[in-house]
Amino acid sequence: MPDHAISPTRAQDYPEWYQQVVRAADLAEQSPVRGCMVIKPHGYAVWERMQGILDREFKATGHQNAYFPLFIPLSYLEQEAKHVEGFAKECAVVTHHRLELGPDGKLIPTGKLEEPLVVRPTSETIIGAMYAKWIQSWRDLPVLINQWANVVRWEMRPRVFLRTAEFLWQEGHTAHATSAEAVEETLRMLDVYATFAERDLAMPVIKGPKPAGERFPGAVDTYSIEAMMQDGKALQAGTSHFLGQNFARGQNIKFAGPSGAEEFCWTTSWGVSTRLIGAVIMTHSDDDGLVLPPRIAPAQVVLLPISRTDEERAAVLDACRTIERELAAVAYGGEPIRSKIDARDIRGGDKVWQHVKQGVPVRVEIGPRDLAAGTVSVSRRDRGPKAREAVPLGEFAKLVPALLEEIQLGLFERAKAFRAERSVTLASQAELLDFFGTGEVDGKGKGQRPAGFAHVHVADDPAVTALLDPLKVTVRCIPMEGPDEPGTCVVTGQPVARRSVLARAY
Amino acid sequence: MPDHAISPTRAQDYPEWYQQVVRAADLAEQSPVRGCMVIKPHGYAVWERMQGILDREFKATGHQNAYFPLFIPLSYLEQEAKHVEGFAKECAVVTHHRLELGPDGKLIPTGKLEEPLVVRPTSETIIGAMYAKWIQSWRDLPVLINQWANVVRWEMRPRVFLRTAEFLWQEGHTAHATSAEAVEETLRMLDVYATFAERDLAMPVIKGPKPAGERFPGAVDTYSIEAMMQDGKALQAGTSHFLGQNFARGQNIKFAGPSGAEEFCWTTSWGVSTRLIGAVIMTHSDDDGLVLPPRIAPAQVVLLPISRTDEERAAVLDACRTIERELAAVAYGGEPIRSKIDARDIRGGDKVWQHVKQGVPVRVEIGPRDLAAGTVSVSRRDRGPKAREAVPLGEFAKLVPALLEEIQLGLFERAKAFRAERSVTLASQAELLDFFGTGEVDGKGKGQRPAGFAHVHVADDPAVTALLDPLKVTVRCIPMEGPDEPGTCVVTGQPVARRSVLARAY
Repeated sequence: MPDHAISPTRAQDYPEWYQQVVRAADLAEQSPVRGCMVIKPHGYAVWERMQGILDREFKATGHQNAYFPLFIPLSYLEQEAKHVEGFAKECAVVTHHRLELGPDGKLIPTGKLEEPLVVRPTSETIIGAMYAKWIQSWRDLPVLINQWANVVRWEMRPRVFLRTAEFLWQEGHTAHATSAEAVEETLRMLDVYATFAERDLAMPVIKGPKPAGERFPGAVDTYSIEAMMQDGKALQAGTSHFLGQNFARGQNIKFAGPSGAEEFCWTTSWGVSTRLIGAVIMTHSDDDGLVLPPRIAPAQVVLLPISRTDEERAAVLDACRTIERELAAVAYGGEPIRSKIDARDIRGGDKVWQHVKQGVPVRVEIGPRDLAAGTVSVSRRDRGPKAREAVPLGEFAKLVPALLEEIQLGLFERAKAFRAERSVTLASQAELLDFFGTGEVDGKGKGQRPAGFAHVHVADDPAVTALLDPLKVTVRCIPMEGPDEPGTCVVTGQPVARRSVLARAY
Repeated sequence: MPDHAISPTRAQDYPEWYQQVVRAADLAEQSPVRGCMVIKPHGYAVWERMQGILDREFKATGHQNAYFPLFIPLSYLEQEAKHVEGFAKECAVVTHHRLELGPDGKLIPTGKLEEPLVVRPTSETIIGAMYAKWIQSWRDLPVLINQWANVVRWEMRPRVFLRTAEFLWQEGHTAHATSAEAVEETLRMLDVYATFAERDLAMPVIKGPKPAGERFPGAVDTYSIEAMMQDGKALQAGTSHFLGQNFARGQNIKFAGPSGAEEFCWTTSWGVSTRLIGAVIMTHSDDDGLVLPPRIAPAQVVLLPISRTDEERAAVLDACRTIERELAAVAYGGEPIRSKIDARDIRGGDKVWQHVKQGVPVRVEIGPRDLAAGTVSVSRRDRGPKAREAVPLGEFAKLVPALLEEIQLGLFERAKAFRAERSVTLASQAELLDFFGTGEVDGKGKGQRPAGFAHVHVADDPAVTALLDPLKVTVRCIPMEGPDEPGTCVVTGQPVARRSVLARAY
């Protein structure tokens, strides 16, 4: 048996380690359709947990769900030239609406469409077209709608969860009477994402606006939450866009104010996707596989009966069922504890390792010896795979909420400590070049200096981009927290009010 | 003010009445994309209720959710010739993966795909391809997976919810080691659908197998639940297919048994869609608009404060909030009562009518006079719009669960009585022709005899189809409930074990 369940380890080959964690945890796999993934039951269950929490938050902040068409007429994208340039170039295009069986048994696309349809890469244009119909007066505002949907962006170099041709996401689209209200909404949803990331995903994030070159095409301001993965790279985990009146003007979304005067609406959009699953994997997992924060773990506790005889089996199964019932009666995070019994007839060691690799927060083994001693043997996924503790049988269920919260907070603190270790504040261009190295790395990121986040004063200026591009480094965002710390750009010397955070990114 | 909120009425023009109910209830509308609908927040909230209940039932019967690609390679459909013939002809076909901006500002599809991709009309083939990889041995069986997804079937004559190019649905796909297990699964899910339709949608259904010509292409047996709409037509509300080894053979889904011998799996698939929203509308709604069964109503109770002065307003709003809190503390159908306060500053009459048209089961008006009398004024959507009853303020919340159950069961009984009225048992071909009339009707169904369900002995024989086709009548299914009542086919004279149910259908 190797030292670790996952090979290669993070230190050996981080990108390949990621693929192996996904495989070992049975989360997803590539499908026969280029760039499209299959999300397997365990991966989808994690997504359902994320959806459930976010959906409640969206509703609590006044949003309603709705559903808009998968297809967007080509002419809609033409109206948004900037949008297309930056965004919609790699799309799936539907050109025919019928199949006919040829004489050789091959299917031939027929029924050519007069206007091709694009499979939505995002829905600003089609949703905007509906808002233009729905919104007449200030009384119709605000419109606060969210959509859970699949979207498609053709990807030349797909990577499961992180970059796939089709992915699942939610996209909020709101329309407001004033700029101030739309900005407030943009920041409110950024906060919803940040709270979700930190509280539920145990993933520390930095919130802030992006420089101009990194904005969503057509947006006035793009805000993101940025997380640090265990290779020191940044992952953009969610975005919230203040679109100003740009999209409203392009799509004629107007309202009559109380005086009767017509004005364009102020709109926002915001989204997170199945990419978050990739972010969680790369934030918490270790060389034994997936580590799931308890709040998003499909099963928080797995009960593993151990027995050799039928008589033993009956007794330990009975004890497991009692614990399962007790767990359903205690709550964590406002919901009953989610547990499952794994009574499959396979080798105990294999079974334990499977749950380690799948990231179940708490494992409980119960055998005849435990029963005789009146205890259960408890292991935590955030500790080494062999660490275990005997806990009195009758007290276990009551202890679980505090145990899960300890694991949840522990993961968050560990990730925060890691980020602190890998973050620096730099004062000059020389320090910047030294921190990120030459940028000459192979395709797998090998040879890359084990960098992290650099907090640096930089201006939103092409000279900065020109310096960073060859290093494959980008300005992730300008962190919003803390007071202004004015300085001068380390590249151009221009005065800037706050430091930006720079990193290599997914 | 006309007698009724919806014009035309059901009696005047049923198809147009349906469209007007959808519009008045703000459920959905046509999008600019041909045949694709926009599901508006109220319609989507109904779908979320349906999803929530079904998802719990699927999980309680051992199923897990997963997600498979939107696109299916053309060659996958070629493997299933029968499937394509009967089913996949009207598909959206993706042929390009890039857009380029032409010199005239027009977008041009480029990046032609080597193999076109079909937007899934259903996912048997792509899911089967994955099962062929995942299933090796009898230990891997059964595989019990469900997918919530959008699917596309090009429709020449779209009708909102009933027949749209894109719709939302769930599709269950299971694989088993034996024929008996697969048949058991097929019938189990048919029962889940029937129970859901009757208990939650208050919609009586007839369960049974379809004749050969009406089966899902490639299925050994197709079972459906059939409901009667208020125009006497049938609507197929859900289907469950026993696929035998047909798809497994086409896609090489094999398993090794305990002895090591390889065998093809036995598979099933089953689904319901947003069509159910159309079914609910046409089962319960009246000439004042939508009527929603309480179990799937997004809001079960709407609280309507009435006031003229600010002081009155504060007092009645306060009373509304108290009731809202009390309602959240009582449960119906295992969940807290869902209520909302509508305190918008619009004419009281308009407000009441809006909730009538949206189908809210219970409306509560509270004005200063009610407060003084210590009562609230309660109206039920299943009664006339003007009927109301004074209920003591402090007792209202406690009465709501029983009130909702009474409405829920009342709707079911009313629909059952309607179906009984419009159902006949026929003994001869002459009676059959007389019941359904000539079938010569205009496109809107006008002039059609107000028929219904005919229970008749018919054989599964082309002669029967030849007689029924010109009448636009089909054999919906062979009802499974009740004992066999053998007879002879009224068309061919062949002996048959049970009567079939015949109807015109959506």
